[in-house]
Amino acid sequence: MKSYRKELWFEAPSRIAFINITRQVEACLRESGVREGLVLVNAMHITASVFINDDESGLHRDFETWLENLAPHEPISRYFHNRTGEDNGDAHLKRQVMGREVVVAITGGQLDFGPWEQIFYGEFDGRRKKRVLVKIIGE
Amino acid sequence: MKSYRKELWFEAPSRIAFINITRQVEACLRESGVREGLVLVNAMHITASVFINDDESGLHRDFETWLENLAPHEPISRYFHNRTGEDNGDAHLKRQVMGREVVVAITGGQLDFGPWEQIFYGEFDGRRKKRVLVKIIGE
Amino acid sequence: MKSYRKELWFEAPSRIAFINITRQVEACLRESGVREGLVLVNAMHITASVFINDDESGLHRDFETWLENLAPHEPISRYFHNRTGEDNGDAHLKRQVMGREVVVAITGGQLDFGPWEQIFYGEFDGRRKKRVLVKIIGE
Repeated sequence: MKSYRKELWFEAPSRIAFINITRQVEACLRESGVREGLVLVNAMHITASVFINDDESGLHRDFETWLENLAPHEPISRYFHNRTGEDNGDAHLKRQVMGREVVVAITGGQLDFGPWEQIFYGEFDGRRKKRVLVKIIGE
Repeated sequence: MKSYRKELWFEAPSRIAFINITRQVEACLRESGVREGLVLVNAMHITASVFINDDESGLHRDFETWLENLAPHEPISRYFHNRTGEDNGDAHLKRQVMGREVVVAITGGQLDFGPWEQIFYGEFDGRRKKRVLVKIIGE
Repeated sequence: MKSYRKELWFEAPSRIAFINITRQVEACLRESGVREGLVLVNAMHITASVFINDDESGLHRDFETWLENLAPHEPISRYFHNRTGEDNGDAHLKRQVMGREVVVAITGGQLDFGPWEQIFYGEFDGRRKKRVLVKIIGE
């Protein structure tokens, strides 16, 4: 069994952002030499997500509006968590809706994807450096 | 390490549907010959889900009502995504709540499940052919 | 390839509870002897979750308030599922938001975590014995 590990670093210029990381995960997969196995891609921070959906800018605006409605950023005082001095209570909730991680099949040395699947880093408390972990196991 | 791959095809007659695919995943597992490992089951489309919950028709009605409330299908114009000519903006959101994939342990050649766990394909933009990927790795 | 399996048992004294199980998963990892691989941690019951977020009590109160707002427990009659004699329709929905499982990378014999990642058992229909499955594969 082979294993491979890499950290991807991001610093989103805005509080909320969606960044397509599919090409970076594919580069990891090539570097790993794994032909059959699984790749785990997860946010290493608890106010961010990794998820799979469509690379369409209108949809990303819909995600932002929808998540803001489900878990509003303001008023900051609405979250007990923010009494610790943070202002990111909403980001911890938004991340639960969008998920922490994806697991993708590797077949014949490729990400085994349907026609529109793309991997995104979802940032809900940006303007700071944060990491994504790529872990690959297989043969 | 053994690996196994199969696509399951579905064409739901309605926009929203929940289909129990546990027996089909069990058949894949038998075919794979894997006794210890992991099975990944994921929607290959971005307006559908694979999830684990109860096989109870009342609960499935509750899921539909609840998801419709969280991300209404209509008016179509409420989603930027639908300006592309699509009418499935809601389906991309519903799929995030229900999830893309499940990873299930394989122990002694069986799905290692609690008493009520069943695997479902969740369709949110049906009336077309769509696929689920079953990928098994182990020994 | 090595594989390892353990069940963790819980009986939360309240309907809703969040229990940090990171130390227990780390103990499983040590027992397994796996240095490189993946660990799957999943609720074996369909009204409970395993998720990764912050070990901060204010945030846990926020989760509870937020989930209660997204999928209220009462009135019991609001869910078709409860016509079966259950009163846990809401718990099946809350679990979908928070997720069934996490998959965590194992690197150098450790859980490969970011600075604040902690694993929680999320209970939404407590006051009964329930299980979490820890399955480890790797080398």
